[in-house]
Amino acid sequence: MARKRFVWKDRVRIYDTDSQGIVHYAGYYRFFTDAFEQFSRSRLGVEFPMLDNNIWFVVVESNARYYAPARLGDDLRTSVSVTQAGRKALRMSFTIYRKGTKICDGTLVQVAIDSKLWRAVEIPKTLAIRIRKNA
Amino acid sequence: MARKRFVWKDRVRIYDTDSQGIVHYAGYYRFFTDAFEQFSRSRLGVEFPMLDNNIWFVVVESNARYYAPARLGDDLRTSVSVTQAGRKALRMSFTIYRKGTKICDGTLVQVAIDSKLWRAVEIPKTLAIRIRKNA
Amino acid sequence: MARKRFVWKDRVRIYDTDSQGIVHYAGYYRFFTDAFEQFSRSRLGVEFPMLDNNIWFVVVESNARYYAPARLGDDLRTSVSVTQAGRKALRMSFTIYRKGTKICDGTLVQVAIDSKLWRAVEIPKTLAIRIRKNA
Amino acid sequence: MARKRFVWKDRVRIYDTDSQGIVHYAGYYRFFTDAFEQFSRSRLGVEFPMLDNNIWFVVVESNARYYAPARLGDDLRTSVSVTQAGRKALRMSFTIYRKGTKICDGTLVQVAIDSKLWRAVEIPKTLAIRIRKNA
Repeated sequence: MARKRFVWKDRVRIYDTDSQGIVHYAGYYRFFTDAFEQFSRSRLGVEFPMLDNNIWFVVVESNARYYAPARLGDDLRTSVSVTQAGRKALRMSFTIYRKGTKICDGTLVQVAIDSKLWRAVEIPKTLAIRIRKNA
Repeated sequence: MARKRFVWKDRVRIYDTDSQGIVHYAGYYRFFTDAFEQFSRSRLGVEFPMLDNNIWFVVVESNARYYAPARLGDDLRTSVSVTQAGRKALRMSFTIYRKGTKICDGTLVQVAIDSKLWRAVEIPKTLAIRIRKNA
Repeated sequence: MARKRFVWKDRVRIYDTDSQGIVHYAGYYRFFTDAFEQFSRSRLGVEFPMLDNNIWFVVVESNARYYAPARLGDDLRTSVSVTQAGRKALRMSFTIYRKGTKICDGTLVQVAIDSKLWRAVEIPKTLAIRIRKNA
Repeated sequence: MARKRFVWKDRVRIYDTDSQGIVHYAGYYRFFTDAFEQFSRSRLGVEFPMLDNNIWFVVVESNARYYAPARLGDDLRTSVSVTQAGRKALRMSFTIYRKGTKICDGTLVQVAIDSKLWRAVEIPKTLAIRIRKNA
């Protein structure tokens, strides 16, 4: 699948860090979340993770690998792409760069659910088409 | 008002800290929140901050003063007491100690609301009585 | 003191919210922190909260009042100004607006310290001058 | 490797949740972190993640799968075990249960580093022995 990359720029904030002087490992997921939310809004035209009152996306898997520490004030670029789009689930891949060097990558898998029944449903057609165009 | 103190013990965790090597200033509110939740459960017999589907408590004011930094692994004792109980609002006071020394104190003011209308309501009678007994 | 306002725009993220469907009370401090950091960088020309290896700013007081809840996706504008500048301490005031309506305001008081001795020191002259110009 | 399980009990707090009414996906890592810290302290006799000023553990991989949502007030049991212990790295596995049902599992991989050089080092002998005994 040819991937159209979307890049989200942000800086490491004091609350992202911990007393090791680096971004706390779970803190990198903030960058994934923000990058996906922004991708979602600008490329897919939907609000993440609640499309409307009925259809929500919930995360069913998360993972990240950390290659180099990020520190307070570092400018990070988070690249995001849809690497797999099923009928009900989406796999998004993320890579975080600092000055061109990859420092972290990872994945989020999200499933569309009926928010009332809390049961997996198919991704709405119009959204599925926009996802394929941006994957 | 004579105050019956309730104490919540917890340790500073790595995610509470920031790259200054101390608990992030906003992180102390986690200790306030946990102490109040535990006080609420064991003394008032209610689940904080949502009593049921209709009546919730929402925070309308928070403040804290920091006297000495807390660091990773520090054992903290958070004392909590109701210092003011109105018809619709509660003022809770908190003091955080490390080895007997006060390192932080502060306040949360919470208002009972109708969760559907999002409008202030009176604190339920039975709860108001229990609050007075524990204030 | 005439105040020169600086405004930081950000959106409410999913991780800012809690199960009441609104921004968690302690979550508003993220907006204060980001606004101050950005003000600091663009107006004062320094990196917050660690100027260098020796001089840091630490928060000695925080407070906020909440007038209306903010929800996922809300666009917020956080206005920041220095309302008091002492020899060793700074008082910053914040107001958060959504579509022109004030939903939260509050204060952070920060003290300059020698990071090695962890003792209050005077704010460096050049910085003090820039602060006065921006207060 | 026969695994000796260690269990950490905690409750879902309001700040763990987001506006979907469930624990935010990145919030489960708090339970992993607390469980590992507690395991580390009571079984291995060391403070996680900084053994001393020279030897720290840093996370190089994290992952989690989410099977069912956890909600405010849920009592969770987080089981932790060392599933792989190398010369320089540790793989810890976590499973989170609510009333006997698995709702989440995942892994953290941590590497021992020299905190000054920020370079991988061997896990100290005495610790390695205690790890093997508890794996």
